Amino acid sequence: MANTTAPAPDTRDLPAQAGALLARLRSERTRVHAITNAAAQVFTANLLLAAGGIPSLTVAPGEVADFTSRSGALLVNLGTLDTERRAGIPSALAAAKAGRKPWVLDPVFVDASPLRLEFARQCLAGRPSVLRCNASEFAALACAEPSPGAIGAFAQNHRTVVALTGPVDRVTDGARTVAIANGHPLMARITAMGCAATALVAAFAALHGDALEAAAAALLVAGIAGELAGEKAQGPGSFQPAFLDALFTLDAETIAARARPA
Amino acid sequence: MANTTAPAPDTRDLPAQAGALLARLRSERTRVHAITNAAAQVFTANLLLAAGGIPSLTVAPGEVADFTSRSGALLVNLGTLDTERRAGIPSALAAAKAGRKPWVLDPVFVDASPLRLEFARQCLAGRPSVLRCNASEFAALACAEPSPGAIGAFAQNHRTVVALTGPVDRVTDGARTVAIANGHPLMARITAMGCAATALVAAFAALHGDALEAAAAALLVAGIAGELAGEKAQGPGSFQPAFLDALFTLDAETIAARARPA
Amino acid sequence: MANTTAPAPDTRDLPAQAGALLARLRSERTRVHAITNAAAQVFTANLLLAAGGIPSLTVAPGEVADFTSRSGALLVNLGTLDTERRAGIPSALAAAKAGRKPWVLDPVFVDASPLRLEFARQCLAGRPSVLRCNASEFAALACAEPSPGAIGAFAQNHRTVVALTGPVDRVTDGARTVAIANGHPLMARITAMGCAATALVAAFAALHGDALEAAAAALLVAGIAGELAGEKAQGPGSFQPAFLDALFTLDAETIAARARPA
Repeated sequence: MANTTAPAPDTRDLPAQAGALLARLRSERTRVHAITNAAAQVFTANLLLAAGGIPSLTVAPGEVADFTSRSGALLVNLGTLDTERRAGIPSALAAAKAGRKPWVLDPVFVDASPLRLEFARQCLAGRPSVLRCNASEFAALACAEPSPGAIGAFAQNHRTVVALTGPVDRVTDGARTVAIANGHPLMARITAMGCAATALVAAFAALHGDALEAAAAALLVAGIAGELAGEKAQGPGSFQPAFLDALFTLDAETIAARARPA
Repeated sequence: MANTTAPAPDTRDLPAQAGALLARLRSERTRVHAITNAAAQVFTANLLLAAGGIPSLTVAPGEVADFTSRSGALLVNLGTLDTERRAGIPSALAAAKAGRKPWVLDPVFVDASPLRLEFARQCLAGRPSVLRCNASEFAALACAEPSPGAIGAFAQNHRTVVALTGPVDRVTDGARTVAIANGHPLMARITAMGCAATALVAAFAALHGDALEAAAAALLVAGIAGELAGEKAQGPGSFQPAFLDALFTLDAETIAARARPA
Repeated sequence: MANTTAPAPDTRDLPAQAGALLARLRSERTRVHAITNAAAQVFTANLLLAAGGIPSLTVAPGEVADFTSRSGALLVNLGTLDTERRAGIPSALAAAKAGRKPWVLDPVFVDASPLRLEFARQCLAGRPSVLRCNASEFAALACAEPSPGAIGAFAQNHRTVVALTGPVDRVTDGARTVAIANGHPLMARITAMGCAATALVAAFAALHGDALEAAAAALLVAGIAGELAGEKAQGPGSFQPAFLDALFTLDAETIAARARPA
């Protein structure tokens, strides 16, 4: 746990909060609409189902508003920025705004394409509840290295929560910062792990108004499920089913016992 | 087994028929062209391959007629109703009609989007061999609760077979009804299970002219594979590979021993 | 090992070369941009990650040139020939040419659609480093049965390497031919196995200027990983994770011990 600009939240609460949010997701079967990339759609849906939520995934411009309106939260992932999604995302964002739904932005590979960077900036102007990105993506968006100060300033300027994932995940709104050390190296060896975990951020944001706490709780749950899977897996192939099994059976006691704030 | 409007078929035959159709699928390597949603494509292909068939999946309007013409049956799933698929589906349906191929309609989430409901109704007018849906989707299409009477009337009016899936699957053409109680709760915890099982309905319909029997046999096979997988799985992650393994090795004896007409 | 037109390369070298290329892929974390079909995207990405590379998969016409430019090689798979990909592929090929990057063509199901055959021929005119296809696809492209002589002549005429996969894989540039007998029947029972293995051909071609040797080494590695997985799997479901695990842990000694030139 690190805190750069203000008193830290009592992080002894985070594991309990994560356990409670996971239990609520299972009982309320929260819907999440995910406009996500082609490589992430299946795993995102399966992660949400394993965690207790109900996913929908359509990207068609004429449909995304209806799907967003009946969901608790929206995920916008830019990993496949094709014509259909570029046309559909603004419609989904408008529906999220109209319905006061939380939404999460995942600007995948925004460092690799100027077109995508421009589109991501337009999305950011619509004020996501949470921006989930890695160090390279943050650097491209912020034109700055991802130092704790830069992340906090970016979050404050854009009135969002930045969830910067990596070996240690850092979640900040500029005033408060939570850092999570849970996870497993095999999480980086299967495609769409980060994309799919971001759907859990959206699901928890649907259930809990404090987006910083929701994001941190979701990343904690994903990191612990990753550790449990990593202990059983023989490699990245067996890791993925083991991760979904671990998430499906994860309980509050295990979360409390395994949480490692950084 | 339930029968609402006419003498029931001799359901002692259904397990034997399912075993025989599975054996024929393995020996004839029947082709199925599936225009299906983005989250279902991989699992649909893998289910067909595990069962013995040969899948093709293209959605491009300029190609779907050629792919349909060389296949034994067509599956049309509306789960990703993007521009490409909206343009391609009519072309595939025309090819199926021209080649007198059976085709199966899966109106995924038709209850969530007016645009999709309208498109599904246009498809229905083309008389699918089988309409596979869940209770919410049926209610949206039929503007009626899915009572046995309503399902039968809808099947008769649309001159199709309705395969309504749920904890108990009901398959009816209005005159005959078969109900199947096989299955496992984890089938609802992985994405595209229903979509993929519907591809097996199409495969069996390619092999057997009685669409009601083909649909019931396919759902029976999928349900039993689900039970076998559920007995081995630790959760939804390990359930999916176990399901494909079970389908790959399933034999007529196991089908006969496990079939549970409702 | 077969050699139809010239002295064979010393195939005792192939296993050592394959082991060395795999080690380099793991240490250099080579990027491969894959424009591939919808059913192959996830498995292609996961295969590359398991082998040590870094995949990207976008198909958007405005982005593929940027992604290709930052990659070591390009894969073009025609399995989903939708509007987006038809528009994006020429842009990616131009970027590969400008950056002198190797690129690999996989003309999936080119035997099933005249539109696709025409598009594949246009791609072929751009001189892929490697053409990976099966017997039916070769026959459609070459208007000739895939005899050793026809394959060699085709490779020479098109100044490419033909990697014809099947129970025995044959790789030829017209002057040299390598044949590989490794593999497992379950490789044909999961979707996109060949498509994903072709991404490994692209990764190895990024690391090694001799495209024939790179292609043969990649197919050898994939075939051995398939054998190892086949020995553990209960069916096609458990085969896929076992394959990725085997690829992740495969070492030069195992490659040397298992290589079976045909």
